[in-house]
Amino acid sequence: MPTVELSQRTRRMRSSAIRDMLRQALQPGMISLAGGNPAPETFPLELMESLTRAVREKHGDRILQYGETEGFPPLQQALARWLSAKGMPCRGEQILVTHGSQNALDLLAKVLLDEGTPIAVESPTYLGALQAMAPFGPRFVPIPSHPEGLDLGVLESAFRQGVRLAYLLPTFQNPSGRELSLANRRGIATLAQTYGALLIEDDPYAELRYEGERLPTLKALAPEQVVYLGSLSKVFAPGLRLGFCLAPEWLRVWLAKAKQGTDLHTCSLSQALAAEFLDSGRLEARLPGNIEAYRRRRDALVQALGSRLPEGFSFERPRGGMFLWLRGPRGFDATTALAGALSRGVAYVPGEHFHVDPHDATHFLRLNFTMSTPEDLEEAVGRLVPCLAP
Amino acid sequence: MPTVELSQRTRRMRSSAIRDMLRQALQPGMISLAGGNPAPETFPLELMESLTRAVREKHGDRILQYGETEGFPPLQQALARWLSAKGMPCRGEQILVTHGSQNALDLLAKVLLDEGTPIAVESPTYLGALQAMAPFGPRFVPIPSHPEGLDLGVLESAFRQGVRLAYLLPTFQNPSGRELSLANRRGIATLAQTYGALLIEDDPYAELRYEGERLPTLKALAPEQVVYLGSLSKVFAPGLRLGFCLAPEWLRVWLAKAKQGTDLHTCSLSQALAAEFLDSGRLEARLPGNIEAYRRRRDALVQALGSRLPEGFSFERPRGGMFLWLRGPRGFDATTALAGALSRGVAYVPGEHFHVDPHDATHFLRLNFTMSTPEDLEEAVGRLVPCLAP
Repeated sequence: MPTVELSQRTRRMRSSAIRDMLRQALQPGMISLAGGNPAPETFPLELMESLTRAVREKHGDRILQYGETEGFPPLQQALARWLSAKGMPCRGEQILVTHGSQNALDLLAKVLLDEGTPIAVESPTYLGALQAMAPFGPRFVPIPSHPEGLDLGVLESAFRQGVRLAYLLPTFQNPSGRELSLANRRGIATLAQTYGALLIEDDPYAELRYEGERLPTLKALAPEQVVYLGSLSKVFAPGLRLGFCLAPEWLRVWLAKAKQGTDLHTCSLSQALAAEFLDSGRLEARLPGNIEAYRRRRDALVQALGSRLPEGFSFERPRGGMFLWLRGPRGFDATTALAGALSRGVAYVPGEHFHVDPHDATHFLRLNFTMSTPEDLEEAVGRLVPCLAP
Repeated sequence: MPTVELSQRTRRMRSSAIRDMLRQALQPGMISLAGGNPAPETFPLELMESLTRAVREKHGDRILQYGETEGFPPLQQALARWLSAKGMPCRGEQILVTHGSQNALDLLAKVLLDEGTPIAVESPTYLGALQAMAPFGPRFVPIPSHPEGLDLGVLESAFRQGVRLAYLLPTFQNPSGRELSLANRRGIATLAQTYGALLIEDDPYAELRYEGERLPTLKALAPEQVVYLGSLSKVFAPGLRLGFCLAPEWLRVWLAKAKQGTDLHTCSLSQALAAEFLDSGRLEARLPGNIEAYRRRRDALVQALGSRLPEGFSFERPRGGMFLWLRGPRGFDATTALAGALSRGVAYVPGEHFHVDPHDATHFLRLNFTMSTPEDLEEAVGRLVPCLAP
């Protein structure tokens, strides 16, 4: 056997507790609120052959050939129109298409993080972002996040101490479901401008809004300070691995260079299919129905929890996204309680996995509501409630 | 504008001269021998709709949903059968499907390379591998490679001095087209076993053989010492971004963990299409015709060069792959000559781009023969010859 040493980087790699748990959650009869998958009923499965025919007729062998690192131009253009309509005016050539948002996070980590580079992250934050960045050895600076928003005092203090990067998921955050208020967004944007900081705005859930008005993105408020990450995983199909990134020009060129060495370019066929899906108006035609289905599921979970939650447990009703963040009383340990829940046939993700310091959130549970029917969500809550004892 | 510093890593990133050059080579009338693309006529474009229908009927929404990091099981199984038939017995769960081989190179770099980690590479070697690894700051140890094979004395001396990694492209190498002899392969395998080294065997061109008998891979000769990288880019479609990796178990688990943070998983639809393409026998049905077309192109280039090359220029006839490596006399500078060639309407890649030390190969030219018809290859040589003056 080779006597090869692994890199220092591997010591910082963590496996996703969620993906490991999802395997366990595959047992028959289990209702899993652990995943983060869109409902397969929302996929345009029945359109795939006609989309394929359309892109073959339109683009010919380009759908199967090597392509540009930056992206398939028709998709870049479709995405630029999409973003421009949402308050982020841009041109196609400014868009970098990525192999899912995870790919963009890896590229950003490569280009921005040295060992010890400080980066502010919300607490809690998206596990996959920590997984992408941690191997590069940055120093995570947790910024407390409450239902009302990010703690601007702590963020400013971090910036004052030299932090120049922040990773944020302002809209329907994974895991907490919370949406930063407009005032909070303005405050963050102003701080970034004042201190010359770069904000990584991860925004995969923006379209999945069940109530309220769309708020401007950080990118819209402070274009030069923000690299914006979008995704087609929640509105088209996650298996196609399509994300995109709108960065300030000085950063875009480095991300493209990094992507060339990382994976050359994103799948040409996926990109062509997505361009067709957007350009033909099918995304906009299907989205309202999908949102409505998700809203019913959210409502079912909220209602079931509201009527049965034991004392000491509480939550904010998520206005969008895929998750509900259930807070237990101090002393309740969601990780310990998971074994009992699994044995009763319900799975969730314990809160500790979403924190830089796992001890911060042992009393939280992340519950997904997009993958289960309203009936199953009600049944799941019935199974869950007996496990919610401090 | 943010006052953000880029990582040290970015100082080591190089852009691909080839991809930059390809843009220039898009001028009308240009015959480009610079690319490394398969001929689009070899793509199963007309099958894409029926393949899509087949995978939809067989797998349903799995083709659009998030999938396992390790790969889509039907493709893992098809690839395991494929590799087993080629002298590398394995099971599906041992295969890691990657977003092209470039993705595998990035994962290997992440898992194996610290700053200063020595890694032996052939001289010349594949530019994309240098691009993937260089940002992580390894110390490249060039091993001279001749038409007869790798210099085993230099390789052993490197191993003796503590090098424990080597990146090799034994079969129809990019850029040199040469195939390591069986004796040379045996010598490398034995050295790796003796010194406990890990060999990265990159093998995208193995199927494109125009003469001679298939030789055993390094993986077949020393399974425990070798991580084998394969690709469907040259036998199915490069735009689908499908590579695969057969690693010793201790390494496979780390590569999968690294992939989770890097891009979650490879495109589900691409993987399902490839599984269907392999399982239905279409790959084996189409391959002989594609090989025959490439053989005619190789022959046309070899013949045109053979009859018109000026004194001091020479080459080995490639037995397979996509490239011919043209050696000029010392004093000839392929980089300088390129401007003249482009102005005459022919593009190639100067040899310096394939070396750790660019000064080693200024008198070489890499000529691709898969993307041009025999007639165009003859015309290209006619344009090229006047530029070949020392």
